[in-house]
Amino acid sequence: MDIYIALVHHPVLNRAGDVVTTAVTNIDIHDLARAARTYGVSGYFLVTPIEQQRAMVSRIAAHWQGTGGDSLHPLRAEALSLVRVVSSLADAERAITDPGGRPPLLVGTSARRHQTTVGYPALRERLTTEEEGAALLLFGTGWGLTSETLERCSVVLPPVEAIAGRAGYNHLSVRSAVAIILDRLLGAHEAPAGPPRS
Amino acid sequence: MDIYIALVHHPVLNRAGDVVTTAVTNIDIHDLARAARTYGVSGYFLVTPIEQQRAMVSRIAAHWQGTGGDSLHPLRAEALSLVRVVSSLADAERAITDPGGRPPLLVGTSARRHQTTVGYPALRERLTTEEEGAALLLFGTGWGLTSETLERCSVVLPPVEAIAGRAGYNHLSVRSAVAIILDRLLGAHEAPAGPPRS
Repeated sequence: MDIYIALVHHPVLNRAGDVVTTAVTNIDIHDLARAARTYGVSGYFLVTPIEQQRAMVSRIAAHWQGTGGDSLHPLRAEALSLVRVVSSLADAERAITDPGGRPPLLVGTSARRHQTTVGYPALRERLTTEEEGAALLLFGTGWGLTSETLERCSVVLPPVEAIAGRAGYNHLSVRSAVAIILDRLLGAHEAPAGPPRS
Repeated sequence: MDIYIALVHHPVLNRAGDVVTTAVTNIDIHDLARAARTYGVSGYFLVTPIEQQRAMVSRIAAHWQGTGGDSLHPLRAEALSLVRVVSSLADAERAITDPGGRPPLLVGTSARRHQTTVGYPALRERLTTEEEGAALLLFGTGWGLTSETLERCSVVLPPVEAIAGRAGYNHLSVRSAVAIILDRLLGAHEAPAGPPRS
């Protein structure tokens, strides 16, 4: 499947459980673009209803792909070429709905466990063996996606956790969570040890 | 084993392959501390020879653990309590050498493949089954650890990569790399889907 990610700045929760709009941060643009490029993600949607912030993201992405940035930082330009700026999740879904009208598989992520949760190995199997269609992985900024958004998802992944006995803490940055989840779904974990590649 | 991580700001390489000292960034302090806490890491060494930067890190860590920070952000305080500031890798190693004189197992990471590479599953098995001793995972800022540092490591992990056919790009942020590598070594990947926990 073609896999996309979306970093959602609205609607998301704050610490108190209110629905808010968070600010886009420069580091999220870069880190998630680089992780997306590493795992062969087809596009990275930055979702914010604030027009000035969409303009800012477009400027930053264009800067790194421009003449100066491109020549000095080709790897960064390649990653940032994945960035797509939209005002709502619905716009992201529409952008990758196929010509036949089939919408993407919506995959929710959360630091809490939800009813519709499926395991990482099962979703990995599906994403890497089905040839048709698109999947959109949703990541919430702030204190996470709202219940309404998660209820719209076809599947919701379990929270990222350490093996039993090591932690019980669940407060990763969204940058860390995106990297880990892409690796669980699309990483080469069993690569054998070997000599340097030529 | 007791597992520690070190974020090395010197000696590391720059884009041109020169040995340099990079600047400590606030986001690295926070993101790596939160990832370390999530995976039950025993301590997070920030390694820099620059005294002013060591002082800055100590102030930041203390701020979040202080009266104000502690009450408003207990989760952040818990993560930042893992931070230990040292001027060299040798100081980090000394700090976790056991009373009998046994140094930590040094584990190198790199975006390139090295001779002494072992796979993630083998190291995961060792870290999670051996009861004695300590391991220190080294992460380089800038363009990575020097050859001299990697040659001192008992094991060097393979670069983080996507499954075959997806990418071939290898330019993750150090924040993403640390999160992914801790998850590969210490994450609960097979957690079954299930109802919400009580």
